[in-house]
Amino acid sequence: MRMMMRSDVSSLKRSVDQGTEEQRQAVREIIQDVKNNGDQAVRAYTKRFDRTDIENWRVTKTELAEAYTSIDENDRTILVEAAANIRNFHEKQRTTSWFDSNANGTILGQKVTPIDGAGIYVPGGTAAYPSSVLMNVIPAQVAGVKRIVMVTPPNTDGNIPAGVLAAAHLLGVEQVFKAGGAQAIAALAYGTETLAPVDKITGPGNVYVALAKREVFGDVDIDMIAGPSEVAVLADHTAKADEVAADLLSQAEHDARSSSILVTTEESLAEEVRTAVYSQLRTLPRYKIAKASIEDYGAIIVCDTKAEALETINEIAAEHLEIVTEHPFQDMAKVKHSGAIFLGPYSSEPVGDYYAGPNHVLPTNGTARFSSPLTVDDFVKKSSVISYSEQALQQNGDKIAQFARLEGLEAHARAIETRKERWK
Amino acid sequence: MRMMMRSDVSSLKRSVDQGTEEQRQAVREIIQDVKNNGDQAVRAYTKRFDRTDIENWRVTKTELAEAYTSIDENDRTILVEAAANIRNFHEKQRTTSWFDSNANGTILGQKVTPIDGAGIYVPGGTAAYPSSVLMNVIPAQVAGVKRIVMVTPPNTDGNIPAGVLAAAHLLGVEQVFKAGGAQAIAALAYGTETLAPVDKITGPGNVYVALAKREVFGDVDIDMIAGPSEVAVLADHTAKADEVAADLLSQAEHDARSSSILVTTEESLAEEVRTAVYSQLRTLPRYKIAKASIEDYGAIIVCDTKAEALETINEIAAEHLEIVTEHPFQDMAKVKHSGAIFLGPYSSEPVGDYYAGPNHVLPTNGTARFSSPLTVDDFVKKSSVISYSEQALQQNGDKIAQFARLEGLEAHARAIETRKERWK
Repeated sequence: MRMMMRSDVSSLKRSVDQGTEEQRQAVREIIQDVKNNGDQAVRAYTKRFDRTDIENWRVTKTELAEAYTSIDENDRTILVEAAANIRNFHEKQRTTSWFDSNANGTILGQKVTPIDGAGIYVPGGTAAYPSSVLMNVIPAQVAGVKRIVMVTPPNTDGNIPAGVLAAAHLLGVEQVFKAGGAQAIAALAYGTETLAPVDKITGPGNVYVALAKREVFGDVDIDMIAGPSEVAVLADHTAKADEVAADLLSQAEHDARSSSILVTTEESLAEEVRTAVYSQLRTLPRYKIAKASIEDYGAIIVCDTKAEALETINEIAAEHLEIVTEHPFQDMAKVKHSGAIFLGPYSSEPVGDYYAGPNHVLPTNGTARFSSPLTVDDFVKKSSVISYSEQALQQNGDKIAQFARLEGLEAHARAIETRKERWK
Repeated sequence: MRMMMRSDVSSLKRSVDQGTEEQRQAVREIIQDVKNNGDQAVRAYTKRFDRTDIENWRVTKTELAEAYTSIDENDRTILVEAAANIRNFHEKQRTTSWFDSNANGTILGQKVTPIDGAGIYVPGGTAAYPSSVLMNVIPAQVAGVKRIVMVTPPNTDGNIPAGVLAAAHLLGVEQVFKAGGAQAIAALAYGTETLAPVDKITGPGNVYVALAKREVFGDVDIDMIAGPSEVAVLADHTAKADEVAADLLSQAEHDARSSSILVTTEESLAEEVRTAVYSQLRTLPRYKIAKASIEDYGAIIVCDTKAEALETINEIAAEHLEIVTEHPFQDMAKVKHSGAIFLGPYSSEPVGDYYAGPNHVLPTNGTARFSSPLTVDDFVKKSSVISYSEQALQQNGDKIAQFARLEGLEAHARAIETRKERWK
């Protein structure tokens, strides 16, 4: 864990993984194959990449229900509570249609409608992520999306972890398919014999998933392309070194490329946190991953002033930001860029990963400069509504026609002027 | 203009232009070159593609002010009024930060902040589009974006149309650069010696601009990738054939690939509109473009019932939709997908292109299924805010730790459990 100058913070920046030209080509071929050959192509890729031959890739109702009863009762209770908290938070994000009327009879407004179909990618691999199911599905449900399709790669025995299926069952997701990688993204975007295409795809995945999402973007919508997880902690003398260290390590265990950065004005805290990180690191089950992450992307930056520390925080634009200071709310007001801001000593970052309510799908790689957590808004779209009145057109028609001619568009001008016949 | 069966409507669908592999490669090279060589690379591409050698590509304050006074006074008045209408509409789109507090002391919320820098691409070519300036810049200004940078390709004489500069001056945009194509997009995304990078790029352009936007997506945000313009008109016996025809042609004159579709339950109206389209077409200055568009992408679909007509409208998911029926508001309620909906006989589509207030940057190519007009929301981003209380952590800490272990993330569990020391 390096002690770093503020000016060195840019060295921690990683750009989005665009893949190699070979990977891009492979992804394009997979997509084309799924477009052409549907289910059969998906099955072949699953056999090749996930090493399991799956005849019926749609998870049955029975499988879903059985997974739900199979998991530990305590786990089930927590899933239910977490889902309720997440739903409660996201309900507050709902946007409504609105209109504004003018005394001349004109009405202008904005209509909000849910998308028809959402595709959720739940990553597989070494761990099971029921929380990914909750965090992607619930905003779509709150938005009013009728058809939600989940895809997730099977294990080599052809199964999906019970926790993931249990979460899907709890939320009433009925369309769950055993497939991962670029082939699953292609199936969601273009459809197959058994999976009708969706309008938007969300959820994190490996580089092939990210490249495939980039490739289908435009034909369907996608969420942001996710990078390794990050946390930045802004701490002062009120922070406890052990707690800060534990929070830094909770990010580091995700991925060898995860990044954990402490920004502080207290030199003594900096030293204590560094010592605590290495001491706590030793007993972690995911020791290797966490160590690599701390070595390569961990940093401690000591700043002279609070203002400088806040500037550094804005430069980092971290996915997760903890503010463990005397006046966390006042400091938060000065934060411009961060996916999620955790205030005070009890808001350990994992509080937000599963349970508190806000979404854990957050902008990484500094993209908090321009993007947002996954919200209900991601599953609706808007239409402008324009009802121009006779009086308004009489008053403004000539000006509109003139503007059209200024841009060289005569047919536009004439469309307006044809209406003049009405009040001749 | 073909009379078409409802089942044939899918034949009018065009997928997003992904360019040829050659074009993609060319775009990637241009971007890399601008990344490496900055201003000098931009200048070389401008010389090559726009056939003009520009020493100082930033438009001066004097040039902006002079352009504003140089245009016709009537045009200036209309620009001022249009800008006021557009600003007035977009002010209503503002979203605010919110929070929700729990009696146990926990606060959850969402903070809204503008992006730091926005890049606006204004297309050049055969016509000048001051309306593009208004429609892209104003939402960014309403969102509170501090730095707005405009790029637009110069003519062969090295100048930019006065109307475009006048619109920029009117809005107080000070950073205007003479550059177009992939080189302008690269400069906005990665910066050069004279142009600091932005966080989001919006605005339409040709295929090279679209491919470049797709390429830089992730490092910066972009708006949707725009395709040719479209209008669908839902009309019944209350519609006047001449007006419908004129509105269809106002789309057709944009581009040979623009599409204009009438959906109606009235066979007589269908025939009258077809006749009127060909009759009005003859005298249009952009006759060739409009004719090609009408021949290749114009269609009239006669449906048996209003319900069937509305389903067809939802299948088309048009950029612009006019509803010219007896009860346009009731019909609008049943529309799921459309960028902008124009109601009643006076809401000719060009009313919305320049003047009424809603944005004219709209989803094309059927992407209204999942995307929205350009809004103020496109220039802000959100951060979740989580202030967990001591009481809440005491109550829920064990459950959060258990969920973390369920996902195999021990360091997450320990981060929560370290806090237990506090109430031992």
